[in-house]
Amino acid sequence: MKFGSYSYDEYIHLVKSFHGSMAPGLVIGGFIVETALQNLPEGEFFDAVCETSVCLPDAVQLLTPCTIGNGWMKVFDLGRFAVTLYEKESGKGIRVYLDTEKLKAWPEFHAWFFKLKPKREQDSEALLNQIKEAGAAVLSMEEVQVKPEITIKRRMGPTAVCPQCGEAYPLRDGASCLACQGKSPYVN
Amino acid sequence: MKFGSYSYDEYIHLVKSFHGSMAPGLVIGGFIVETALQNLPEGEFFDAVCETSVCLPDAVQLLTPCTIGNGWMKVFDLGRFAVTLYEKESGKGIRVYLDTEKLKAWPEFHAWFFKLKPKREQDSEALLNQIKEAGAAVLSMEEVQVKPEITIKRRMGPTAVCPQCGEAYPLRDGASCLACQGKSPYVN
Repeated sequence: MKFGSYSYDEYIHLVKSFHGSMAPGLVIGGFIVETALQNLPEGEFFDAVCETSVCLPDAVQLLTPCTIGNGWMKVFDLGRFAVTLYEKESGKGIRVYLDTEKLKAWPEFHAWFFKLKPKREQDSEALLNQIKEAGAAVLSMEEVQVKPEITIKRRMGPTAVCPQCGEAYPLRDGASCLACQGKSPYVN
Repeated sequence: MKFGSYSYDEYIHLVKSFHGSMAPGLVIGGFIVETALQNLPEGEFFDAVCETSVCLPDAVQLLTPCTIGNGWMKVFDLGRFAVTLYEKESGKGIRVYLDTEKLKAWPEFHAWFFKLKPKREQDSEALLNQIKEAGAAVLSMEEVQVKPEITIKRRMGPTAVCPQCGEAYPLRDGASCLACQGKSPYVN
């Protein structure tokens, strides 16, 4: 079993070091990303769409060249456990998702995913074994076409100094930066 | 010069391998995150706010335990080159930002940051040398209070099967998943 260029154990080691814990979602994520990588659409360069912000983006960042900071991975907070790898120009992609029908064959995995058991009643060893054993058997895939507004690279454009905070910001955002327009994450 | 637990060269190696290229923004990002780490507010656990989606989030992910997938880093697309590390419970944080006034002392760095030169006229060696030489001298910091709606951990709540697509989604999103409510990144 390989995840990208890593063995299972190497991948788990990376997960612990980058993500901070051995999250079951990252093990499933490993299978999801690996399945997508094995079924890449034609073309030289691909970008990634991740349909949840929980766990899965880190599997994409560890196993593909796509990260949040280089802009090749986009995260949409749709709450679906799915990843699409798509050819940058055409937007043609392969989407791999956790198939809830197939999941029924794996009771511990199913119960964990649908939160049917309180955490203290979960058997984490059985859970991880089932996730590992199930592997790609709980996944399905489909071809998708990514919307043009997502594939188009948005240029930053000119940079200006915000007259309110004095910091640099993209002029396309308006006469002052978005933080000074009320979107600051801070009090005051 | 250290970035987190890495030497400068180790950090650059990590940047190339994770981010895919030696982006100048990640070198500045290294100084920003390191400065924040050295001035952490009191408390055991901290989360990160990154005020741009360009480059900087990868410096946070490489140098702190905070990633997009583990939820400890939040990215706000405000276009400001700033990172805040804040104590999880209290929201008290230290914000480190690129200070445009201080930047004036470094012409190549300044011209690159404000896009005053076409790319082909840039001297990338001089640029990297100035960024490295300037280091924390172009940064300023301030204490901030992160808004409670950001510090509060939002629970996912119950998971249901979407009646339209058949995939699992957080029931709090409504009677069907957000993708089926029109937020799908795909055509159809």
